[in-house]
Amino acid sequence: MIGSVTASSLGLAIATLPPGPLNAITDVAGVRVGHRTVTDPGNPAVQTGVTVVCAHGGNLFREKVVAACHVINGFGKSVGLLQIAELGQLESPIALTNTLSVPAATEGLLDHLLARCPEIGTTTGSANAVVCECNDSFLNDLRGRHVCREHVLDALASAASGPVEQGAVGAGRGMSAYGLKGGVGTASRIAETDGISLTIGVLVLSNLGRLAELTVAGRAVGSELTRGRGAGKAPDGGSLIAILATDAPVSSRQLGRLLRRVQNGIARTGSTTASGSGEIAIGFSTANRVPHVPAGPVLPASTIREDGPLIDLMFAAVTEASEEAILNSLFAAELVTGRDGNHREAFPVHRLDELLTAAEARKRA
Amino acid sequence: MIGSVTASSLGLAIATLPPGPLNAITDVAGVRVGHRTVTDPGNPAVQTGVTVVCAHGGNLFREKVVAACHVINGFGKSVGLLQIAELGQLESPIALTNTLSVPAATEGLLDHLLARCPEIGTTTGSANAVVCECNDSFLNDLRGRHVCREHVLDALASAASGPVEQGAVGAGRGMSAYGLKGGVGTASRIAETDGISLTIGVLVLSNLGRLAELTVAGRAVGSELTRGRGAGKAPDGGSLIAILATDAPVSSRQLGRLLRRVQNGIARTGSTTASGSGEIAIGFSTANRVPHVPAGPVLPASTIREDGPLIDLMFAAVTEASEEAILNSLFAAELVTGRDGNHREAFPVHRLDELLTAAEARKRA
Amino acid sequence: MIGSVTASSLGLAIATLPPGPLNAITDVAGVRVGHRTVTDPGNPAVQTGVTVVCAHGGNLFREKVVAACHVINGFGKSVGLLQIAELGQLESPIALTNTLSVPAATEGLLDHLLARCPEIGTTTGSANAVVCECNDSFLNDLRGRHVCREHVLDALASAASGPVEQGAVGAGRGMSAYGLKGGVGTASRIAETDGISLTIGVLVLSNLGRLAELTVAGRAVGSELTRGRGAGKAPDGGSLIAILATDAPVSSRQLGRLLRRVQNGIARTGSTTASGSGEIAIGFSTANRVPHVPAGPVLPASTIREDGPLIDLMFAAVTEASEEAILNSLFAAELVTGRDGNHREAFPVHRLDELLTAAEARKRA
Amino acid sequence: MIGSVTASSLGLAIATLPPGPLNAITDVAGVRVGHRTVTDPGNPAVQTGVTVVCAHGGNLFREKVVAACHVINGFGKSVGLLQIAELGQLESPIALTNTLSVPAATEGLLDHLLARCPEIGTTTGSANAVVCECNDSFLNDLRGRHVCREHVLDALASAASGPVEQGAVGAGRGMSAYGLKGGVGTASRIAETDGISLTIGVLVLSNLGRLAELTVAGRAVGSELTRGRGAGKAPDGGSLIAILATDAPVSSRQLGRLLRRVQNGIARTGSTTASGSGEIAIGFSTANRVPHVPAGPVLPASTIREDGPLIDLMFAAVTEASEEAILNSLFAAELVTGRDGNHREAFPVHRLDELLTAAEARKRA
Repeated sequence: MIGSVTASSLGLAIATLPPGPLNAITDVAGVRVGHRTVTDPGNPAVQTGVTVVCAHGGNLFREKVVAACHVINGFGKSVGLLQIAELGQLESPIALTNTLSVPAATEGLLDHLLARCPEIGTTTGSANAVVCECNDSFLNDLRGRHVCREHVLDALASAASGPVEQGAVGAGRGMSAYGLKGGVGTASRIAETDGISLTIGVLVLSNLGRLAELTVAGRAVGSELTRGRGAGKAPDGGSLIAILATDAPVSSRQLGRLLRRVQNGIARTGSTTASGSGEIAIGFSTANRVPHVPAGPVLPASTIREDGPLIDLMFAAVTEASEEAILNSLFAAELVTGRDGNHREAFPVHRLDELLTAAEARKRA
Repeated sequence: MIGSVTASSLGLAIATLPPGPLNAITDVAGVRVGHRTVTDPGNPAVQTGVTVVCAHGGNLFREKVVAACHVINGFGKSVGLLQIAELGQLESPIALTNTLSVPAATEGLLDHLLARCPEIGTTTGSANAVVCECNDSFLNDLRGRHVCREHVLDALASAASGPVEQGAVGAGRGMSAYGLKGGVGTASRIAETDGISLTIGVLVLSNLGRLAELTVAGRAVGSELTRGRGAGKAPDGGSLIAILATDAPVSSRQLGRLLRRVQNGIARTGSTTASGSGEIAIGFSTANRVPHVPAGPVLPASTIREDGPLIDLMFAAVTEASEEAILNSLFAAELVTGRDGNHREAFPVHRLDELLTAAEARKRA
Repeated sequence: MIGSVTASSLGLAIATLPPGPLNAITDVAGVRVGHRTVTDPGNPAVQTGVTVVCAHGGNLFREKVVAACHVINGFGKSVGLLQIAELGQLESPIALTNTLSVPAATEGLLDHLLARCPEIGTTTGSANAVVCECNDSFLNDLRGRHVCREHVLDALASAASGPVEQGAVGAGRGMSAYGLKGGVGTASRIAETDGISLTIGVLVLSNLGRLAELTVAGRAVGSELTRGRGAGKAPDGGSLIAILATDAPVSSRQLGRLLRRVQNGIARTGSTTASGSGEIAIGFSTANRVPHVPAGPVLPASTIREDGPLIDLMFAAVTEASEEAILNSLFAAELVTGRDGNHREAFPVHRLDELLTAAEARKRA
Repeated sequence: MIGSVTASSLGLAIATLPPGPLNAITDVAGVRVGHRTVTDPGNPAVQTGVTVVCAHGGNLFREKVVAACHVINGFGKSVGLLQIAELGQLESPIALTNTLSVPAATEGLLDHLLARCPEIGTTTGSANAVVCECNDSFLNDLRGRHVCREHVLDALASAASGPVEQGAVGAGRGMSAYGLKGGVGTASRIAETDGISLTIGVLVLSNLGRLAELTVAGRAVGSELTRGRGAGKAPDGGSLIAILATDAPVSSRQLGRLLRRVQNGIARTGSTTASGSGEIAIGFSTANRVPHVPAGPVLPASTIREDGPLIDLMFAAVTEASEEAILNSLFAAELVTGRDGNHREAFPVHRLDELLTAAEARKRA
């Protein structure tokens, strides 16, 4: 369901900065999110999907946005990062899906871009489709490669601003986080100072961690949940993808600085960034755009000052939004049973208070 | 045809180090190369293909090789580099193809890997398919995405050690280099000192540069060729891919050092590394292997010393083999006519002597 | 004083892995730490010093260790990192000092290295001195550049294995962390699995963060301390330096992976990595050595497997040791009054229990 | 002497783009260069010095310029690069000197900056002094550390726009390049298109290569010179430093792209980038400035378009200016005899024509 239970709605004081009205990446004006969950009534082993994030509602190839990427742990198969790093631009929607469906998702994005831009591959070069992935093979028949290019087009067709559905939807359908059901989560923060108010939104696809590590608002809640059932094993091929959007006028270098704070948020949910967990962050600014064919030789660009409190507020915003987006992905997800009867339980939101109290009591026992 | 005309066979003294017996990447024992050219008798706009390079003839996923990658200019869409950079390993054949066929080539590699490794996606994580690309849209109907996954399997089936076919074959079918017909080229060098003899082989997919820039053995041969027909325009979305193989026992860090010398070889052929030219180098060592499931906690690895002449000889070997591989791709290619009647002429090998002499005469006119 | 009060001795359960016998970087056999505190009875504005870490007790230039570095936030003036990154080697003691004393500390290291190696600058090249810094200008007369090269030699002369003095000593003398007195801290962890037991030790120079951010064992202890005195302001030019030592046989690439987990530990102490805070990590392995003049062309080396629980235990060890080392730097430091009467209070260790309880109570108020 | 003999004045057609009026880095308006040669009439082993490059004539700390750096081969001891990479800014003159005098040169820059900015270390943080080095120990008593901080102040005092003295002056005094006398060289190029004219200037400190490798305008001139005296040995601890200035409005990311083309120019002079040769490039734009205390939260900036011919002309300009600057450093240098009677001959400029002809004749013998 859409944002029904979030860290904020539960009263967890993990925020020092206020969220935006939706507490979602879509608080950044113009940003759109769409999901296409892929399941099969006749085959419970199909538990996967696609989620797309669009920087704006126009033609992204012709009107690119300033962007950056950051690899926290590169055990992953995301595509499109090389060109983002070189040119500091994003010219495609970002699609999230499962590991082995990256090529299908890329085809879907190319279908979308080529249909809208007949110049690609004829009078201009090519287009840089961006696809990130996590490995949902615990619940999903990964080898079946059940995502097809049409699913990407469905997700794009449904992409909208407004509230974002979270949990076991879209690309999040088959994901596991901290031994529980993970998936899509989002959060936002407002950084306000110097007479300027800037929004930072983060959307994650969470698929990382062992239950014993799960930390909620600083408490070892995962430890409590493992009592009586073992600490859990880090899944091979976990991952976390974070998409960061901001309306701040930032350069790609500055976006890179923001993205390096995503790791802070991840760390606060308990992970120590496992070797097999591909953790990738991509960010873009809706304020700095680059037309495919500029009007003249020089383009104006704006950057925020980096000497005062503004940039540090933004760093705090990234840290907090990343932490909360991961928790929100857990809190919103429902139990899913998939491949070989494997299942991931939902985080027991109704027991949160009890778990926090128990964790506190045990902490220095 | 197979290596019939090369910089070495033409007597160009661009080498200070001796080539291996084949003057090819396959001089590194165990390395295999395969091509699948994709054309369509009924559609001259289909001028593309796939080339694969395999580090050895066994199961690459289960017996990985130490690897590295280096981005010279990241305006490109190659996939699989993130994980090579993180883990210093290659666990897949490397496929080369056109820009918009990267997803199809990835599917083909996944078909190959999944068929050979039922554990992928079930009891172990995923597999990192590596695909690099250049944009062949001048000659080829890029938007048609004519490469399909079966073409990759064909290329893999044909992969062999021994002489390597060069020029307008496989992924090289539709490529242009220096305004002429480019494509696949290869060369090798032997570095011998300290009582050890090491082989370095390079295979390139060449698709870069303007005719006016072309430099052969230090002479401005391209300038000569432009007389009477204009300097040519850098194609949007050019690229150069270089695959480096060595039997030297090197770490991924050392391989990274080798790969950074590929740019030296490119520069000597005249390119100034255009903005739109994705230039990517991937290297691997056949001497240092990493089993998917090691026998114990600690793996032996060997590295070469970096304080003496050996490493510098290897750097010279990379520089020279890269330069010659690019020239060989030109010298071996034949004229191809493709999309919209566009064509690329072959380098006039029979006029080489005359061109070199004319370039010398004009140099300080 | 030496390790008298640490997060571990206080019973804070922030560890899932056991510390080494000393809970210090010197738990890694052979590692030596030395301090030279620089104060002036006649000038209270002199509050600074030097701390050195030696990978072993031999000639470090002639017997180098495998090393790596990682820049978390590059607003800093550390020297020597370029060559560590290129060669994956450390050939010098690491000196820590204040920002403007980096050149003096470099001179001191060069004095030490040149005296022991007459070949440097005559028959062999040069030596790569490694110096890291934090800005202690709140307490110390930074502009006075009071550290001189002899202080480095003093610190080197005193370098010893065994317990490590922590807090306001050596380079830590003038540092501030989370608005309190910071400085030198250390901790260690043992990673044991697969029939192998490996030690990871971390030593930090802490000079980061605002009081309101301070998090101890997940609780917002800093918030409690700010009641009645304001949240504090991030100092311009803070920093955190982390030195990681391990007896694990790891490559420089693997060390780089370990170092990227230092940020997890920092994040757990509350920081969101301020723009002006130079955060740098350097690591070395005592198990993999590289002689300046190797005996032959190929050097044996070992690496740990990266597919199983061992590497993840090491990542957890880095995270935990980094977190605890920062807390230990706070817990061990005493009040210091310096430049212009500025002072930094010690963390009120005797109130820790009360503060943790208060923080818990307020968390979801 | 000042630019008396350069590749351009010799008629070498290594340029496709026109140089600026001075064919020097000072063609970029505002850029200043100063030298302080350090010799000792009583001690021929003292052959060293300092060269400084200032981005403009004002207060560089208070009025920073957008900057970037690029490490071609990191076997070097340059300081200040971390912060340039993080913030994309340069706030100090750049000093060049010998390897072991880096700390002294840093002290000199700090003297200069602290004297002009009393706020450093009191009300604002610190300052990022930038010093790059090459190893001049073949001619100079490197271990003597004969450069002192006053020499830097002398160089700064003499810094001027206008023609640049080249060869064995300043930091170039003791340097060797291609087995001959190297040192300081400079060149510039104009990139003009799209109704805009941009200047790129490069200044190098050359200390790289073996004589046998030297390539002049594509000819193996070094080979000719080795006849009868052996190929020469790469010096341990060579290096090449390149400083790039431009009046183009570029971001730090774009400057990074420019800097990666310096390697093209180096490669064309024959080097294969030896392991022990620290090759570092630093660039800045005089068009994009960043005040230490900006007036508001958002700073305007400009960037050049990267989709058309302009950026490729700039890449060609960097390549050509780098190549010519290295040659100019050779052509301008005079014979120097130094430590232990070691000497480096000047390039025999008067024999250039003969050497080029001989190299051509031999090329395909």
